[in-house]
Amino acid sequence: MVNLADVAHRAHVSKMTVSRVINHPEKVSEEVKAAVLSAIDAVGYQPNRMAQALVNHQNYVIEFLVLEDVVTVEPNYAILLLQIADLLNQKGYTLEISTHIKANKRIDGVIVSGWRADDLPALEALSVPVVLYGESPLDHDMPYVDVDNRQGTALATQHLIQAGYDKIIYVGLTVDLPFAQERERGYLDTMAANHKVSRVYTVDNHSRAAEQLIFNLQTHLPANTGVVCATDRIALGVVRALNRQNGIPEKYGVVGFDGVFIDQITSPQLTTIRQPFAQIAHALVDNLFVQLHNGELGMQRLAPDVIIRDTTRH
Amino acid sequence: MVNLADVAHRAHVSKMTVSRVINHPEKVSEEVKAAVLSAIDAVGYQPNRMAQALVNHQNYVIEFLVLEDVVTVEPNYAILLLQIADLLNQKGYTLEISTHIKANKRIDGVIVSGWRADDLPALEALSVPVVLYGESPLDHDMPYVDVDNRQGTALATQHLIQAGYDKIIYVGLTVDLPFAQERERGYLDTMAANHKVSRVYTVDNHSRAAEQLIFNLQTHLPANTGVVCATDRIALGVVRALNRQNGIPEKYGVVGFDGVFIDQITSPQLTTIRQPFAQIAHALVDNLFVQLHNGELGMQRLAPDVIIRDTTRH
Repeated sequence: MVNLADVAHRAHVSKMTVSRVINHPEKVSEEVKAAVLSAIDAVGYQPNRMAQALVNHQNYVIEFLVLEDVVTVEPNYAILLLQIADLLNQKGYTLEISTHIKANKRIDGVIVSGWRADDLPALEALSVPVVLYGESPLDHDMPYVDVDNRQGTALATQHLIQAGYDKIIYVGLTVDLPFAQERERGYLDTMAANHKVSRVYTVDNHSRAAEQLIFNLQTHLPANTGVVCATDRIALGVVRALNRQNGIPEKYGVVGFDGVFIDQITSPQLTTIRQPFAQIAHALVDNLFVQLHNGELGMQRLAPDVIIRDTTRH
Repeated sequence: MVNLADVAHRAHVSKMTVSRVINHPEKVSEEVKAAVLSAIDAVGYQPNRMAQALVNHQNYVIEFLVLEDVVTVEPNYAILLLQIADLLNQKGYTLEISTHIKANKRIDGVIVSGWRADDLPALEALSVPVVLYGESPLDHDMPYVDVDNRQGTALATQHLIQAGYDKIIYVGLTVDLPFAQERERGYLDTMAANHKVSRVYTVDNHSRAAEQLIFNLQTHLPANTGVVCATDRIALGVVRALNRQNGIPEKYGVVGFDGVFIDQITSPQLTTIRQPFAQIAHALVDNLFVQLHNGELGMQRLAPDVIIRDTTRH
């Protein structure tokens, strides 16, 4: 086991000097510091994580900040969390979980999930690099990683058109966040490009709200209608309302969005736009590490997949 | 801002001595250490977390170890995770996430979710306190916190009997873990106590597997049958199979178990046995902290609630 004395011997300094380089690098000349760090490297001395942190002014800790209501469990963040923990562990970093924004924490960077627009000023004020999961509003130029939301609903709309559904409606979210606007935009653009008339409805992100909406609309939904849904949770409610009469997929087609957990438990199996969670986890970590090395990746939108299953004709 | 010099002045020692107390307490006499620590306290000096860790031989870090497959998102662990993170943050500790058992990590204790029996030897070998979420097998005497699983299915069975369902069957899990055995036991005991004939089926924890089972059984399920399900995921499949004929709750009653996420998105709303997650999170943290102070709480089983909704008569 290599110890402090070996480092001191190699660097021709006292053990106290080695200790000082580790614990008070600001009090040591650059020359001595370089000699000691090079000796640490040469003999293979492994200062413990805390000593390393003091040397490098790093903590080897990344924070995953979940700003959603603790009671609402969103499967999206949970699946990202474990993948990010794995990636960071491979890099010798650990992942800390927090549910509140705090300054002055001993962390190197922050990945944020479940934020709302009014959280952004506090996040921008943090002294460490931050990357958002989810598109940032235009007036806050923060680095983010997200699925390409607009492309996702464009793919959903195209799939319904190609599957021969005649009318196509959109059931979107009442929430006023960029990802929701982009999902609506993907539907609207694709409808316009295909010279079709758009119809947008919005609901809260609850399956029962979506079920009720479709129930109320039903006399206005002619056979051969396709429904593009902003989330799988909404799609679940739409499927429930339409499938009562065994209308799926012959009479009605339904496409969800997200592709995690909820789509596993729906019956019939949900056609959906799947977020590439493994790639998103990688991109969140990469985005943060590029910032830690004073670089910038900015905004990253990753391409989704269409998973065609049993709620659309194929 | 109070600094090292203020502490040194107060303790009538050099700054180097204060630094040594923080960084190498083993090299300092108990008398000097006591004087410096008391001065730190008196002047309100806040050594950073790493320095504190070195002083106290503590890391102020608890690990949450998720041993489930990363791709399977279980809402149970996700809801516990955020509640535990909150509780630990209040105590000045942070929560680290990991998906693999590793020895020699700079952590003070471990909370484990999603373990299987063959993970237990490696967990027992860890040098820090460990508490399991989920009942431990009898041949591994590890501290754990869990809902009282036996009481849960006993409550479910009693509720179905009181609601007037005639035959009552159990759809359990194929998995051979103590919590699953206890849930089956709660049903069997209650049936025996009420002089009723038990019938146990088992499936994998997938709603489609449960749906298929009930579909296959249906000619053997007379009207006025109640179904106790080992999980909400199983209940979801059972409800789907039985509700096709609008048989719930008049003809059939269904009770789930767990009460997180899945029960929110079923239709009709699921009667279920709810795990007291806030209490479980508290108990997991308390169990670990008692161990950190050389005490022992051992095994803790917390009482569940029956949430009566629309899949049973009431």
